[in-house]
Amino acid sequence: MLIEERLKELKDKINGIVPKGITVSQVEFEGPELVIYTDDPKAFAEQADLIKVLARDLRKRIVVRTNNLKDPETAVSEIKSVVTENAGITDIFFDADTGEVLIEAEKPGVVIGKNGATLREITKHIGWTPKVVRTPPIESSTIKQVRQYLRSVKDERKTFLRAIGRRIHRDIISKDQWARVTMLGCCREVGRAAFLLSTPESKVLIDCGEKPGSNNGTPYLYVSEIYPLTQLDAVVLTHAHLDHCAYIPLLYKYGFEGPVYCTPPTRDLSAMLQLDYLEVVRKENEKIPYTSNEVKTYVRHSIPLNYGNVTDIAPDIKLTFHNAGHILGSAVAHFHIGDGLYNVAFTGDFNYSKSRLFSPATTQFPRLEALFIESTYGGSNDVQPARREAEERLYQVIKTVIGRGGKVVIPAFAVGRSQEVMLALEEGIRLGKIPKTPIYLDGMIREATAIHTTYPEYLNNELRNQIFREGMNPFLAECFVQVDSPDFREKVISGDPCVVITTSGMLNGGPVMEYLKGCAPDAKNALVFVGYQAEGTFGRRIQKGWRELPIGGREMIRIELEIVTIDGFSGHSDRRELMNYVGHVQPRPEKIFTIHGDENKTIDLASSLYKRYHIETHSPLNLETYRMI
Amino acid sequence: MLIEERLKELKDKINGIVPKGITVSQVEFEGPELVIYTDDPKAFAEQADLIKVLARDLRKRIVVRTNNLKDPETAVSEIKSVVTENAGITDIFFDADTGEVLIEAEKPGVVIGKNGATLREITKHIGWTPKVVRTPPIESSTIKQVRQYLRSVKDERKTFLRAIGRRIHRDIISKDQWARVTMLGCCREVGRAAFLLSTPESKVLIDCGEKPGSNNGTPYLYVSEIYPLTQLDAVVLTHAHLDHCAYIPLLYKYGFEGPVYCTPPTRDLSAMLQLDYLEVVRKENEKIPYTSNEVKTYVRHSIPLNYGNVTDIAPDIKLTFHNAGHILGSAVAHFHIGDGLYNVAFTGDFNYSKSRLFSPATTQFPRLEALFIESTYGGSNDVQPARREAEERLYQVIKTVIGRGGKVVIPAFAVGRSQEVMLALEEGIRLGKIPKTPIYLDGMIREATAIHTTYPEYLNNELRNQIFREGMNPFLAECFVQVDSPDFREKVISGDPCVVITTSGMLNGGPVMEYLKGCAPDAKNALVFVGYQAEGTFGRRIQKGWRELPIGGREMIRIELEIVTIDGFSGHSDRRELMNYVGHVQPRPEKIFTIHGDENKTIDLASSLYKRYHIETHSPLNLETYRMI
Repeated sequence: MLIEERLKELKDKINGIVPKGITVSQVEFEGPELVIYTDDPKAFAEQADLIKVLARDLRKRIVVRTNNLKDPETAVSEIKSVVTENAGITDIFFDADTGEVLIEAEKPGVVIGKNGATLREITKHIGWTPKVVRTPPIESSTIKQVRQYLRSVKDERKTFLRAIGRRIHRDIISKDQWARVTMLGCCREVGRAAFLLSTPESKVLIDCGEKPGSNNGTPYLYVSEIYPLTQLDAVVLTHAHLDHCAYIPLLYKYGFEGPVYCTPPTRDLSAMLQLDYLEVVRKENEKIPYTSNEVKTYVRHSIPLNYGNVTDIAPDIKLTFHNAGHILGSAVAHFHIGDGLYNVAFTGDFNYSKSRLFSPATTQFPRLEALFIESTYGGSNDVQPARREAEERLYQVIKTVIGRGGKVVIPAFAVGRSQEVMLALEEGIRLGKIPKTPIYLDGMIREATAIHTTYPEYLNNELRNQIFREGMNPFLAECFVQVDSPDFREKVISGDPCVVITTSGMLNGGPVMEYLKGCAPDAKNALVFVGYQAEGTFGRRIQKGWRELPIGGREMIRIELEIVTIDGFSGHSDRRELMNYVGHVQPRPEKIFTIHGDENKTIDLASSLYKRYHIETHSPLNLETYRMI
Repeated sequence: MLIEERLKELKDKINGIVPKGITVSQVEFEGPELVIYTDDPKAFAEQADLIKVLARDLRKRIVVRTNNLKDPETAVSEIKSVVTENAGITDIFFDADTGEVLIEAEKPGVVIGKNGATLREITKHIGWTPKVVRTPPIESSTIKQVRQYLRSVKDERKTFLRAIGRRIHRDIISKDQWARVTMLGCCREVGRAAFLLSTPESKVLIDCGEKPGSNNGTPYLYVSEIYPLTQLDAVVLTHAHLDHCAYIPLLYKYGFEGPVYCTPPTRDLSAMLQLDYLEVVRKENEKIPYTSNEVKTYVRHSIPLNYGNVTDIAPDIKLTFHNAGHILGSAVAHFHIGDGLYNVAFTGDFNYSKSRLFSPATTQFPRLEALFIESTYGGSNDVQPARREAEERLYQVIKTVIGRGGKVVIPAFAVGRSQEVMLALEEGIRLGKIPKTPIYLDGMIREATAIHTTYPEYLNNELRNQIFREGMNPFLAECFVQVDSPDFREKVISGDPCVVITTSGMLNGGPVMEYLKGCAPDAKNALVFVGYQAEGTFGRRIQKGWRELPIGGREMIRIELEIVTIDGFSGHSDRRELMNYVGHVQPRPEKIFTIHGDENKTIDLASSLYKRYHIETHSPLNLETYRMI
């Protein structure tokens, strides 16, 4: 069927469902959404459940727009009259092409209203379709840039979304029914995640990351399976860490033209980390795989999806993201293939224990036949201490070091680990478990934290309540001090006892190197590792006991400060949690693939899962393809 | 390195090896061979071991040519003066472009001489490089056509071979080292054999057949892995049966431009069967996948290889064919990958017992890590009677039926089974085990037999000796009578007691249907099945006990004749032989993949092999890809 015929059919169907008096002038696909144009948005908005009914009956995500738009000035005053002042509206932006008005507010919930009542009210008055985003409580330059950029390319983006929408809803041609997954990286290793899900109709790439500590750390992007890239229907990104997203911009350089689906925080964090990655590569004088232009192209092609939204991404594939508990916006990607043919989920990196930031990863799926599970801590000895224990140990170390007049330097990843440590320290100070001492943040940590505070709905209930209900955003606590200049950094290094959280997490560059240089010679100080140190990094060498290190060329520093490693802050499930997760996943999968772990760990986990649950398990190799069905 | 530089380097190396006084004017790649041009072919030919030394040192297949060519007339008389008359030269053809002279002789061995002495003598005298082919003792129109056609396209073919030669010897670019096999068909099923062997440098397709008894029986040729077809380095064809070769011409229609490697008999038999296949499809009014033009294109692109010749087919892949014992020219394809990196062999269809026609399949390989083994009779109950027993049973049936005045109709595949039965019957008559009765051959059997007699070096020692030494070609025995017209067929049907061997082997069309119609009503006659009858064929229905069948539209025939099934004539290894084969393969492989068998048989065989030999076994699925290394 031609797409025009399909749209006509949908329009007729919609006209059959909407009450008399409501006119539907046009329907159009935009990305995964079906956009319904009406001359009478008021009437549409008055029917509270109408959109839900349409979405259910048509099995599509529905957006309603109108051609009867009030002029922006009037519309602004209408919005302000409907929305109460405490919403804290900071910006209103009109997009005549989509008929959307973007309302940036400190409290988006107030603009939305209960069950969307306020939004419906707005629509009724102004015609424009309101979209609400949060005003970042800590200003994030990334988010500002992303939003500005997306506004500047709105025409191009609309064309793109229409094309993608029509592509998603193309006819199914093949009579064959199968689904398979090709491993393009991340098997029996950590890093360069890239999995190709293919059916007779469609191809979807899940993640496209780098391998840390490796020179040529791309996935196997040169094999035929993913070519031509113009036929790749979509990239699905589970979370923003570089070992999952670093090479997505490269795909556009190679000819990919399709969308990248990810959660909104993943889009922002990944763009930030990709730009930082380019900086790091540039500083190391290595060949730059792509430029910031390709990062922009990626952002322009991204389609944000929230957890739980079942979304058509290809004629025979529906994607749903679920909370993965690993970092902000991290998702378990669930794929429903064909009309009930098969279901496969990729955990991405996930945490099945509750952390200070996130709820444990989802275990409930409508259907599930195959599960791809990460195995970072999949070895039988990979049992981590409980978070609470790790925190108590950190408090103890800080108390001791501060007590003896020293400084505590904590190298940490900007995204995830830093915020987890910040929350622990904020509580430690609040409850008097550690002395009231400044906690300096250096590197990208503040920017990453700003992005966290923009998306509190992605944090766990307690933290969200703390931020919303109690109005006590722990990230804004006065103990945190941003280091924003080399002079200030010098002062911190030569100043009073304190705690410093800084990047990079593995001491392979970044401001942490300055702190190390300054603090290393004094045995009163301490360097506290809270994360995994990969082979080949300075962090790893120091952990191994090296006491003299070359820093920046020939300069050698002697390591006199105390070295402490505290396990238990990981964003990954440990061995026990991985085993338990599979036991709790509903429904029980038929097949499990252990990936994203060292060779012995993926094999150990696969074999242990088989023994405990009698589920078929595989520990695939890179470049292999497995049939799902 | 540019190919010109490589050729220059080779030329310098050759000049360093050849004795002083011999000049090498040019070297060039032609297909997998390195062609050395010399002004002095005499001097070259006098050094008996020189070519061997060059081949060993350069690790290339060497051909020597000269530019000093005598005029054809003089050359013919020189050849006739060197070669003794009993060689039976029937044709001499000169190819000025390649400098080759093709000598067709009844006894090629006499033209070649001991260790090639006569050939060297010819070269010394005439400059032209002699190639010797056998004059078919029974004239085969296929072979005549193939040889004529190849002569007519020799210019094009030379250009093609040079291009392929340069392509094979291109530089190796990738630093990665891996090898994998993608299953494009023939897994957990019989038919549509197609396996893609790929490395970072190269791609080779092994077989490309149809699935018998299926409407859309192509391999999975629509998946990305084999595209673009212009980057496919080669197709390797294990043997001529249609479930292995039917869709090779289609590849050319889709854009493939490379060579097909197969043994010389496989080339001729496959072209014959492909043309017949087109006829059958046409008669059934089904869509014709390609035309005889594409069969010609295939023949033009074929590069024949004899058993045992180690041949470069890609920068990092060497192919060697070994006897498989299944049908004429059938081969086990052995691939040596990289410089000692990995070795994998595909048995194709094979027979590990000695038959009247062939030696048992090879078990000895220089190196072997992975083995793909067919599983047609891989089930634990698939034990076949010994050939001798089967023959005795056939003799018994014939004696009885002829004795009671009936006719014996034996449906058989034109290639393989027919000749096997012919040889048994010829011996039966010669030794007086069955009465002297005419054995009528109808359908393509005679043509297939003619091709067999053209390549006696592909038959087993005893049969070859019988043909060569004893001059008693059993295929020429007077008991065999070719049916060459509908009238004659009518006479046979209405005539005296006799035996008829005719196609098709499964009673899905062909002259056998006429014999069935004519002989079915008389209970004195017998229909003797000597081969597997696939589901959906008339053969299968009759075996199942149907006693009334519609033939050619609405006409019904009643089956009154005796139905006999004799197992044991199969060209496949039975279960015991499959198990024993693996035990005897040297060296012992690390991995075995069971393919080309019904689902339960491939699984049963894989599990039994693992239990007996503790070798890792897999029973892969279509569309899966396994890493070899």
